[in-house]
Amino acid sequence: MASESIETFLDGLASSAPTPGGGGAAAISGAMGAALVSMVCNLTIGKKKYVEVEAELKDVLAKSEGLRVVLTGMIAEDVAAFDAVMGAYALPKGSDEEKAARADRIQAALKVATDAPLACCRACRAVIDLSAIVAEKGNLNVISDAGVAVLSAHAGLRSSALNVYINAKGLDDRDFADERLQELESLLADAGALTEKVYEVVKAKVN
Amino acid sequence: MASESIETFLDGLASSAPTPGGGGAAAISGAMGAALVSMVCNLTIGKKKYVEVEAELKDVLAKSEGLRVVLTGMIAEDVAAFDAVMGAYALPKGSDEEKAARADRIQAALKVATDAPLACCRACRAVIDLSAIVAEKGNLNVISDAGVAVLSAHAGLRSSALNVYINAKGLDDRDFADERLQELESLLADAGALTEKVYEVVKAKVN
Repeated sequence: MASESIETFLDGLASSAPTPGGGGAAAISGAMGAALVSMVCNLTIGKKKYVEVEAELKDVLAKSEGLRVVLTGMIAEDVAAFDAVMGAYALPKGSDEEKAARADRIQAALKVATDAPLACCRACRAVIDLSAIVAEKGNLNVISDAGVAVLSAHAGLRSSALNVYINAKGLDDRDFADERLQELESLLADAGALTEKVYEVVKAKVN
Repeated sequence: MASESIETFLDGLASSAPTPGGGGAAAISGAMGAALVSMVCNLTIGKKKYVEVEAELKDVLAKSEGLRVVLTGMIAEDVAAFDAVMGAYALPKGSDEEKAARADRIQAALKVATDAPLACCRACRAVIDLSAIVAEKGNLNVISDAGVAVLSAHAGLRSSALNVYINAKGLDDRDFADERLQELESLLADAGALTEKVYEVVKAKVN
């Protein structure tokens, strides 16, 4: 998926084809956030003026690049998870055995399709935390990119949350679902307030 | 730019190269928002259950597709505007005439670099309005995509606003700058509240 052109991806997103959809867009938002954290690090590390934060930003860069790889991979994972759910629903349901087998496959696919966007939420949340560091300590000349990073990551987090809600709703295993929904709420809890704080820090520096 | 692969774009974003940067990411966020509005329209139009909203969603689709084309083009426009500012700063400043010519070119380039992200803000704001319609009237099966659309468009709007602030700050022509900043504030004014309202509509439908 990530080897597709931006234009081809957007054409697919806009079309009536079921994938790519919002899950893929969420992963791209997160990946853009991670990439922009990396950009601020790359334009801060090695500059005399910022020598005091160099070690910390090298650590941030390693983390943001790791998250970028993970989030980029999630564009395709979202498609696979969605296709598996659709594939399960398409199974035959003539006999009782077929019905039971189909129901099992749907439930198994829904678990994967709940965990996949939750993992995206987790990664986006981590990007928000890294954005906060670079907004505070990064090169002032590119500080707006820290602001774009936090907004993109937050949009990715909340977008992906919608897919967790949808798929968790269909799960029969309520313990499994509740555990995921609980983690999701903890990821979302202070994300909005932190994002606003980072945005205000950046806005104050660019104005 | 839009013909580049997603991966290549993200690599460029993360690198220490000055472009692409947050402006390009903002345009992609807006374009993903427009594309997702189109997707919801495409999966609603032609369905018996939604025949009553068909005419309205056909109109929304025409608008969202127009905005998608505009926003996709803005990925490259952001690079061009940035390069023009950098090019102007790089002009010789030996003689008084050179200094004056350089200052003029910087100011002219900054005007373009203020208007370009403002146009992106305007397009993202329009996508938010369209998201509100599809969140209310679109096919329930893909309603989460309306939620992702509004979050992406709002992230694009606020991201692009940072570039308006930065470039307007450098303008000597304060009337020009103030007019842009005033329009920007009116675009931002109720965008946050509207985005939350649309997100809550979608969240209630998926839960």
